[in-house]
Amino acid sequence: MSGIKAQGEKRLVLASGRAHPELAQQIAKELDIELLPTSAYDFANGEIYVRFEESVRGTDAFVLQAHPAPINEWLMEHLIMVDTLKRASAKRITVVAPFYPYARQDKKHRGREPISARLVADMYKTAGADRLISVDLHTAQIQGFFNGPVDHLMAIPLLADYVRTRVDLDNVTVVSPDTGRVRVAEQWAERLGGAPLAFVHKSRDVTVPNQAVSKQVVGLVENRTCVLIDDMIDTGGTISGAVQVLKNAGAKDVIIAATHAVFSDPAARRLSESGAREVVVTNTLPIPPEKNFKELTVLSIAPLIARAIREVFEDGSVTSLFDGKA
Amino acid sequence: MSGIKAQGEKRLVLASGRAHPELAQQIAKELDIELLPTSAYDFANGEIYVRFEESVRGTDAFVLQAHPAPINEWLMEHLIMVDTLKRASAKRITVVAPFYPYARQDKKHRGREPISARLVADMYKTAGADRLISVDLHTAQIQGFFNGPVDHLMAIPLLADYVRTRVDLDNVTVVSPDTGRVRVAEQWAERLGGAPLAFVHKSRDVTVPNQAVSKQVVGLVENRTCVLIDDMIDTGGTISGAVQVLKNAGAKDVIIAATHAVFSDPAARRLSESGAREVVVTNTLPIPPEKNFKELTVLSIAPLIARAIREVFEDGSVTSLFDGKA
Amino acid sequence: MSGIKAQGEKRLVLASGRAHPELAQQIAKELDIELLPTSAYDFANGEIYVRFEESVRGTDAFVLQAHPAPINEWLMEHLIMVDTLKRASAKRITVVAPFYPYARQDKKHRGREPISARLVADMYKTAGADRLISVDLHTAQIQGFFNGPVDHLMAIPLLADYVRTRVDLDNVTVVSPDTGRVRVAEQWAERLGGAPLAFVHKSRDVTVPNQAVSKQVVGLVENRTCVLIDDMIDTGGTISGAVQVLKNAGAKDVIIAATHAVFSDPAARRLSESGAREVVVTNTLPIPPEKNFKELTVLSIAPLIARAIREVFEDGSVTSLFDGKA
Amino acid sequence: MSGIKAQGEKRLVLASGRAHPELAQQIAKELDIELLPTSAYDFANGEIYVRFEESVRGTDAFVLQAHPAPINEWLMEHLIMVDTLKRASAKRITVVAPFYPYARQDKKHRGREPISARLVADMYKTAGADRLISVDLHTAQIQGFFNGPVDHLMAIPLLADYVRTRVDLDNVTVVSPDTGRVRVAEQWAERLGGAPLAFVHKSRDVTVPNQAVSKQVVGLVENRTCVLIDDMIDTGGTISGAVQVLKNAGAKDVIIAATHAVFSDPAARRLSESGAREVVVTNTLPIPPEKNFKELTVLSIAPLIARAIREVFEDGSVTSLFDGKA
Amino acid sequence: MSGIKAQGEKRLVLASGRAHPELAQQIAKELDIELLPTSAYDFANGEIYVRFEESVRGTDAFVLQAHPAPINEWLMEHLIMVDTLKRASAKRITVVAPFYPYARQDKKHRGREPISARLVADMYKTAGADRLISVDLHTAQIQGFFNGPVDHLMAIPLLADYVRTRVDLDNVTVVSPDTGRVRVAEQWAERLGGAPLAFVHKSRDVTVPNQAVSKQVVGLVENRTCVLIDDMIDTGGTISGAVQVLKNAGAKDVIIAATHAVFSDPAARRLSESGAREVVVTNTLPIPPEKNFKELTVLSIAPLIARAIREVFEDGSVTSLFDGKA
Amino acid sequence: MSGIKAQGEKRLVLASGRAHPELAQQIAKELDIELLPTSAYDFANGEIYVRFEESVRGTDAFVLQAHPAPINEWLMEHLIMVDTLKRASAKRITVVAPFYPYARQDKKHRGREPISARLVADMYKTAGADRLISVDLHTAQIQGFFNGPVDHLMAIPLLADYVRTRVDLDNVTVVSPDTGRVRVAEQWAERLGGAPLAFVHKSRDVTVPNQAVSKQVVGLVENRTCVLIDDMIDTGGTISGAVQVLKNAGAKDVIIAATHAVFSDPAARRLSESGAREVVVTNTLPIPPEKNFKELTVLSIAPLIARAIREVFEDGSVTSLFDGKA
Repeated sequence: MSGIKAQGEKRLVLASGRAHPELAQQIAKELDIELLPTSAYDFANGEIYVRFEESVRGTDAFVLQAHPAPINEWLMEHLIMVDTLKRASAKRITVVAPFYPYARQDKKHRGREPISARLVADMYKTAGADRLISVDLHTAQIQGFFNGPVDHLMAIPLLADYVRTRVDLDNVTVVSPDTGRVRVAEQWAERLGGAPLAFVHKSRDVTVPNQAVSKQVVGLVENRTCVLIDDMIDTGGTISGAVQVLKNAGAKDVIIAATHAVFSDPAARRLSESGAREVVVTNTLPIPPEKNFKELTVLSIAPLIARAIREVFEDGSVTSLFDGKA
Repeated sequence: MSGIKAQGEKRLVLASGRAHPELAQQIAKELDIELLPTSAYDFANGEIYVRFEESVRGTDAFVLQAHPAPINEWLMEHLIMVDTLKRASAKRITVVAPFYPYARQDKKHRGREPISARLVADMYKTAGADRLISVDLHTAQIQGFFNGPVDHLMAIPLLADYVRTRVDLDNVTVVSPDTGRVRVAEQWAERLGGAPLAFVHKSRDVTVPNQAVSKQVVGLVENRTCVLIDDMIDTGGTISGAVQVLKNAGAKDVIIAATHAVFSDPAARRLSESGAREVVVTNTLPIPPEKNFKELTVLSIAPLIARAIREVFEDGSVTSLFDGKA
Repeated sequence: MSGIKAQGEKRLVLASGRAHPELAQQIAKELDIELLPTSAYDFANGEIYVRFEESVRGTDAFVLQAHPAPINEWLMEHLIMVDTLKRASAKRITVVAPFYPYARQDKKHRGREPISARLVADMYKTAGADRLISVDLHTAQIQGFFNGPVDHLMAIPLLADYVRTRVDLDNVTVVSPDTGRVRVAEQWAERLGGAPLAFVHKSRDVTVPNQAVSKQVVGLVENRTCVLIDDMIDTGGTISGAVQVLKNAGAKDVIIAATHAVFSDPAARRLSESGAREVVVTNTLPIPPEKNFKELTVLSIAPLIARAIREVFEDGSVTSLFDGKA
Repeated sequence: MSGIKAQGEKRLVLASGRAHPELAQQIAKELDIELLPTSAYDFANGEIYVRFEESVRGTDAFVLQAHPAPINEWLMEHLIMVDTLKRASAKRITVVAPFYPYARQDKKHRGREPISARLVADMYKTAGADRLISVDLHTAQIQGFFNGPVDHLMAIPLLADYVRTRVDLDNVTVVSPDTGRVRVAEQWAERLGGAPLAFVHKSRDVTVPNQAVSKQVVGLVENRTCVLIDDMIDTGGTISGAVQVLKNAGAKDVIIAATHAVFSDPAARRLSESGAREVVVTNTLPIPPEKNFKELTVLSIAPLIARAIREVFEDGSVTSLFDGKA
Repeated sequence: MSGIKAQGEKRLVLASGRAHPELAQQIAKELDIELLPTSAYDFANGEIYVRFEESVRGTDAFVLQAHPAPINEWLMEHLIMVDTLKRASAKRITVVAPFYPYARQDKKHRGREPISARLVADMYKTAGADRLISVDLHTAQIQGFFNGPVDHLMAIPLLADYVRTRVDLDNVTVVSPDTGRVRVAEQWAERLGGAPLAFVHKSRDVTVPNQAVSKQVVGLVENRTCVLIDDMIDTGGTISGAVQVLKNAGAKDVIIAATHAVFSDPAARRLSESGAREVVVTNTLPIPPEKNFKELTVLSIAPLIARAIREVFEDGSVTSLFDGKA
Repeated sequence: MSGIKAQGEKRLVLASGRAHPELAQQIAKELDIELLPTSAYDFANGEIYVRFEESVRGTDAFVLQAHPAPINEWLMEHLIMVDTLKRASAKRITVVAPFYPYARQDKKHRGREPISARLVADMYKTAGADRLISVDLHTAQIQGFFNGPVDHLMAIPLLADYVRTRVDLDNVTVVSPDTGRVRVAEQWAERLGGAPLAFVHKSRDVTVPNQAVSKQVVGLVENRTCVLIDDMIDTGGTISGAVQVLKNAGAKDVIIAATHAVFSDPAARRLSESGAREVVVTNTLPIPPEKNFKELTVLSIAPLIARAIREVFEDGSVTSLFDGKA
């Protein structure tokens, strides 16, 4: 038979954008590899330049980017890196976006709005992405926006294992800051030994005429430690307000837990002054020193992502990383 | 200048599958047109044949199908009709699917599951659909599954205007049968004059040791008329159970309101025996005589769909049909 | 060089829909493997649910479905299984559809008809299929409907080898039931040692004025064993009629041979009562017990499909499975 | 409302490649328009240059090319013209290819062959074609190769109306030169007042031992005028041989009728010497003077194509141009 | 015939991003329309929100954005606006990007680089753009990156008509600052009455051993007014250096003319101090007050863009706007 | 775990069209393999037939074609070969087109022109190409026309290493025949030890009134050996004219060097009579004996292409083949 035969071999490379070098280094260390040597900088007018300093032909390439502000810069850099890998003959390209950009614009709330979360998925595809890894998508339906495999990692086990060491499990309530996160709260409750649930929401006390709408808490919180959970904390307004409502309702103390620390101003100040005993987040997004505060605990998401990358590379079953049920 | 010039003209046609001829006729009547003459039948082995008996060249074609059981048959017929329109040179093809098929499979709940709602969107696109009109999608993110304009109509105003005539607005509570529908319940509450909200959910009474999990109602329902709302009623198990929980909690009476009457067995029996005073639905799906029961009220969705079709054809602003906020 | 290197490895998995479990088991046994553990069931309203119970990451996945009535159900299940494999990171997905759905709608016979056979090909592609394996396509042009490799297997050698043991090769004529299958009849004739051909067709005897059109046989059939061949038997009307014409023309006896036993009612009765000595088919489609009859012989297509799958997996030359000339 | 409103208008333009200027002129004359002024020439190394000398913005553009030898040149010119129209903002582009290139490579006859007819369809699509008009496709399944509307015109009425004036309808037989064209022969027979059919095919006379395979005619031809039909005449070998077989079988005389006069050498000589009384073709392909011969009659396809173009432009019902049944 | 017929009508709308409101207003004024009412703002973490406040159904929508720094922000806003128009049923979407983003990354200068200019074109397409209008692309090949019509406007006539009033045409030389712009310089020379050309480039004087490479001017510049031209001025280093070389070579004075005033720091200072008599640019990019300087003349590109938009809307011939030869 | 596991293996095959069998053989010899056995011939009407005589399943297939006149034939054959490989299950298909067809039509020079170089890229993609290898593209932007990896090989080192042996490096000037090739001339100059540059261009001597435009040389050429470089020589008019200009300007002698020997008539005669001492080209295109002449030196490009193919197959770093900087 004509031609040349050779043994098949595969090679994993991990490239990273400039938004969050610490996370990239942590993941590389977990994988016991070096990051792909990369040049990336801005031209004078803000256009981004990227070049990989080592061959990526035939590789199973994972390209990580965090997406803090200025989010459009980092998104564009991410897309350019994917294009670069495609044109340099990477065999398979997996986008690793721990915090999915524009996740909240996942539907038309009103007419003549964009669905930017779908646009982002399509742009990754257009640039050349074959697969996507993300953590705690704002809504799980975003998986369906990407036309290819999505590994949807969950940070709850990581967060819950830590919180479990900080509370008395016999006296804890899991609280959702609004009605849209109750299913997530249920998963938390299971991991905290069957803790009861509570919610904060706006309502009108129909027993009192003409009463204005106010925020109220539903569920048992009096004299209990409340674990107030959310997927992300942006400006911190809603969640800080919820701490106050819980305190007013007689909560003993409050621990806030969230995956994505967006921390737009004035989140750090609000959280620090909210009265919460502790704020637990992961490092899917970088937290600059000036946004740190003494109640803040940051857990590293790197081991979770590293395990997912390794299992994807080795075609292993990584479902256990994704959720408790599978 | 070479060639022929002619005045532009546009023509609307409305085609319909065989799943729900009554709805098609109602919409055609609202539009004051005839349905597109169509041959459609099954071959002996179940393959579907479709032919349009009149030219559709250059038309602005709307193709309606309802999706009751056997849902895959009707979906496939719908796709074949779209293919037929495309190959017959329709200028623009708008799929009208009042009840979106496979809407509940909108994400991977666990690993190695399909996202069938995205698959359905892609199949409509592949067949040749340019646009999509649907009513009360199970999750609004499904809009983002279709790569084109989606007109997402809402049946709440229709249902609420009716329910408003059936209750004492000073003594009504809007109830969600689970925690995932609360935002919809809030829209109902606004339309019923600021009614209070309640939810049914599973919880454990932490004040009682070893107590098993049971369904409980949260919110004021005692001696009040409860409007129990949902987007669809399939087998009716959850919603009938919720009626019972509300009754046990002292509700005066219960009205069930839902957009999509899927009514898989034994929904009709369950609803009829549930103790609800009235069950209000729309005819996005056909309700065969044997699934009718005396408490059932069916409102026609035809005027809403007809208005959307007309506005789309005329390039008007139809946002007001879609939601209250826009 | 940065990154991790590993030895390449490949893994074949065989998944199957619910339409024809016996065939799936036979193929798996031929390959000496277990079928991929799979959950598949219908929701109350007929929507299909699928989940694979084992990782398929990086696999060379073959997904089998037969397409008897209700054919749209099984087609949709097949598409959903492909979507599931795609989203679960299968490396390559080969659709195995022994009987290609909607094969007879392969062109517009008249204006404003669909070309459903192309639509089916596009839907498989949209769902994520990379390759297609089928047996005896109604027209070979369907290969061109799928945008990717198609392995077109032929059942003639299997059928002919059996028929060869049932006839006196010196006294056999191969008969096509209509004029569209003559080329296939020629292949049969070669495999039966150069047997003569005959055809049944409608004609008018121009030597007799005013004679009505009737079915006539062209070719030598008197006192000979006729092997009446076709690609599929649906309701059996045409082929049973052909048996009668052959008998009237003096045929000694008739053996019917066809690849696809669609057997829509009243095929079984018609064939059984047709006067044919034997009806030979393959099991590309399931034949329920009530459609069996004593003249029926069913040959298993499993070894042919298993060999194709193995060769595709091993990148071998499988042309010999496809046709006699290559 | 913001913006500018204007009356819609549409403009038809007809562009033509260089392969068959006479046909283009005839069609333009039928439509009572000028051809789109066009520059087209070859660079020294054979690369083709095209430019339209008049604006085509917003037009309904029809672009005609015939496909005689050198067929790849004319195909490439056709594709470049489509690209030019797309980039010059034509609103809709309809490819008019009276003789579809590579129509005979419509399936894999053996392994490792191309399906060039599908490739051609995809290349037209890639270049920017929205629609396709062709005449008497070699197999009707080619309609399904193009992902868009195909208007499949039939030349039989044109040819048959002429032939009808040249024969005694009471003494005519329609003959297919091989078994693959019988269905077309049946349409001819209907148009010639229910004439009987006959076929030429290879067979072995089983009544004579060791007899070699030879061409034989099946059906009544003795003392009758035979109309020998085909879709195209390439080198003329098969059809000239068929004339001889018919003559040997006692045919009174033979008229050959075919749509596409490919006339590769030595077709003209063969046909002229075949003994056929007359050879009737259309001008879907140009016939250079040196390939003319005295028995040849060429009918113009221009009126048929012009009517199709006009109806497509006017969104009329042109099914009647396509086949007799619709 | 079934359905509704209506007169065709078309409506132009002009939407604009936030990067350069003055240019948008000028274009709107030229067209004598209002800009499409639009809400656009940043969320706290930098994600961009867009909504159109008026129906755009069925419109011929032009969406303008300038692309100064921060360029990725404005590019992303542009893409989101296109997505919004697509999902809101605009009939045709034309992207107006006077300064094409990432135009300089139009090829791989070395291995493992992106081709970001192609990525930008694909992202516009993915978002939903049908057409593109741009001014003086860095290389004309970028037209080929976009899969659709591109209207490539030229600012030279605008700039040259102005410069012509500022110089003595008998004593002027057109100078290219490097060897890559000579063809553009030739077009300038023609418009300035056949002025001679000169170039600045690096060279080594081979007549002097060991001489270092230095910038030299080729062509007649002594005692002449030099018009130094380029497509864009970014940091101004190259062009300011060229002024010095010209002055050293005895030029009487220098006028700089360029289309795109990128003006990254320290361009304004460099240009102001360069010794050039005047710097003439257009307003394809906004020039903030702090980057203005007394030698700067800014010509409005709005009339050119407005004419192109109007002609595109009216399907007129706008070639005359694009270049002098057509 | 279910299924079959096997060791991964990869196989390189090299297929070739009929345009330049010598080059194919040379490359195969460099790789120490046999060419893929292939049948390729023309049908009577010029349609091309291709079949591979050996399995290509799962292969890493490279398919070579040269593109001399008749260029559209060879391009179409190339596309058909790609289609054949795709349908025969090649795993990856790399098009090797040493001389890229239609490279000079890489932009719209005027309105209503095609961008044929982009069309060619899209057609390769449509046929099934994953990657592209080419040599010295007319403009490097063509890399961006193909949506996938492009390996852009450079012949300058090969040509320069030869020329270096034919000249006195202390007395050589690199000359560009027009102003568009100066950057390439600079690369040549570096490889020839820092030789000075010169250009030929049209200009007007402004010191002499009414002087006509004529070709002039800029730079030091008197008494020096001039190396006149270009990417391709088509009819040889420009480059032969440049030799004359250089001679008139006092050049000692001239060596012409170019990558692609298109050699359309009357190139061979013109070059032979031009007065150039030697004409050095590569064999990216075949040079038939009648176009040879005594001053012609042809260097083989086969080693360069063979190395690129091997490195691509082995996922090595081949950047060094592409340009000197990476």
